[in-house]
Amino acid sequence: MAISTFASSETSYTQKSKHMKIAVLGTGMVGDTIGSRLIELGHDVMMGSRTATNEKAIAFADRHKGKGSAGTYREAASFGELVINCVKGEGSIEALQAASDGLRGKILVDISNPLDFSKGNPPSLIPSLSNTYSLGEEIQKNFPATRVVKTLNTMWCGLMVNPNMIGGGNHTNFMCGNDAEAKAAVRKLLNEFGWKNENILDLGDITNARGTESVLPIWLRVWIATQNGAFNFKIIH
Amino acid sequence: MAISTFASSETSYTQKSKHMKIAVLGTGMVGDTIGSRLIELGHDVMMGSRTATNEKAIAFADRHKGKGSAGTYREAASFGELVINCVKGEGSIEALQAASDGLRGKILVDISNPLDFSKGNPPSLIPSLSNTYSLGEEIQKNFPATRVVKTLNTMWCGLMVNPNMIGGGNHTNFMCGNDAEAKAAVRKLLNEFGWKNENILDLGDITNARGTESVLPIWLRVWIATQNGAFNFKIIH
Repeated sequence: MAISTFASSETSYTQKSKHMKIAVLGTGMVGDTIGSRLIELGHDVMMGSRTATNEKAIAFADRHKGKGSAGTYREAASFGELVINCVKGEGSIEALQAASDGLRGKILVDISNPLDFSKGNPPSLIPSLSNTYSLGEEIQKNFPATRVVKTLNTMWCGLMVNPNMIGGGNHTNFMCGNDAEAKAAVRKLLNEFGWKNENILDLGDITNARGTESVLPIWLRVWIATQNGAFNFKIIH
Repeated sequence: MAISTFASSETSYTQKSKHMKIAVLGTGMVGDTIGSRLIELGHDVMMGSRTATNEKAIAFADRHKGKGSAGTYREAASFGELVINCVKGEGSIEALQAASDGLRGKILVDISNPLDFSKGNPPSLIPSLSNTYSLGEEIQKNFPATRVVKTLNTMWCGLMVNPNMIGGGNHTNFMCGNDAEAKAAVRKLLNEFGWKNENILDLGDITNARGTESVLPIWLRVWIATQNGAFNFKIIH
C-alpha cells in the first residue's frame, strides 16, 4: 500500500513517469539516440519519417522489436502521447506540418536547431530564425494548439539522454516554453534521462529559444577547438 | 641571479608582466572596473573618452592619482602600449576611429558586444554584426594595422578581473584573434587578473567572435532567470 501510494505521487521528482507512447520525429543520430533510450526506459516509441518505408526507421523498429515501430510523421504523431522533434532545423516546419493532425493538444519537445550549412563551416543560424526570432517560436506559432517545450538542443545527443557521462551529471540543460504543465511533464522525462532538477534551468516562455539556439555558434566552435563533442556548459555561481 | 633569470623567463605563466602603460577606452562600469584593477596590479592607466572633460574619466583619474589619468580616445590610445576597448558595442567603431592614430601596431583587447537595445529586452545583437559576422571582425577589418584580441566579453566585469570570486576561478574565458603573439601577451594579462591558462580557451582567429558574441543572448536570459549576474559558463568534459 505504502509503495503504491508513493508510486502514484505526482510530486516526487525521483518517481518514474508512467510508461508512455512517444513519437520521435526524425531518423538521424539524434532521433535514434533519443528513441533507443526511451525504449530502454520502458516507453513505446514510433519513429516518424517522410515515408513509411524509411530504411533507418525500419532498422530502428527491427532493433527494438515489440517496443519500437516506424511510420510516417503523421502516423507517429498520432501514436504518441508526447512528440519529440528530432528533425533537422531546416526541415522541421515541413515535417511538423505533415504530422499536424496528430499534434493537436499534445506536448512537443523541440530539440532542433535552425542551422544554415549554406555559408560554410561552422554553420551559422538561418537568418530569419535567429537573433530576434527563433525556430522554437516559429514552431509554436505554426502549431498554436500544441504545447512546445524547447530543451536539450544545446548539446551532443549522447549527453541529452545520459548526462551522467560527464561531470557527475552536473552541467546545465536549458528549457523554455509557454505552458507550465507541459514543462513539468518534460522535466519528469528529463529526470528519467538522468537530469537532476537543479541542473534544468527554466528560462521562461518560448521566446527564450532565441537564447538557447544562440548557444550553437559557440558550441560548434568549442567543439572544433577541443575536438571533443562530449562536453556541455555548466553555470558556475 | 637565479631570481632575475626566473623573472625574465618568457615561458613561466605565473610570471607577472612588466608594468605597462595601458589605455582603457570607455568610462562605463566595465572601463572603470578594468582600469581600477590594472592600477591595483601596478600598471599606469589612461581612461579615454570622447572629450577630455568627461566627468567619469576625471573622477577615475582623481581616485587613482599618480597611476590613473584621463584623456581623449586619441590621447589614451597614444599613451597605451596596449589598448582595451570597453566602449559600448554600438559606439565602438566611432570611438576607435577617433583613437586610430594611437592604435597602429598595437594590441587592442576588445571586450565589447554589439548589443541592440532598440528591439526590447533583453537586447538582441545588431543584425549586421551577428550570426555571419561580428563586431570583433568589423573592428579588425577597420583597423588592419592593429592586432585585435577578443576576450572577456562573455561575463560580468567583476568576474573579468577577478575570476576567483566564483568556483575557485574554474570557469571558461574564451579568446580569439588573428595574431598568436598578441594572444600570448593578452594571456599574460589575463593570468594577472587571476585566469589560469587551462581556463582560457583560444578558439582561433577573429571570426570566432561570431561565437563569443553569440553568448550574450543566452547570458542575458540566464541572468534574468537567476537574478544573479555573477555567474559564468564552464565547459565540462
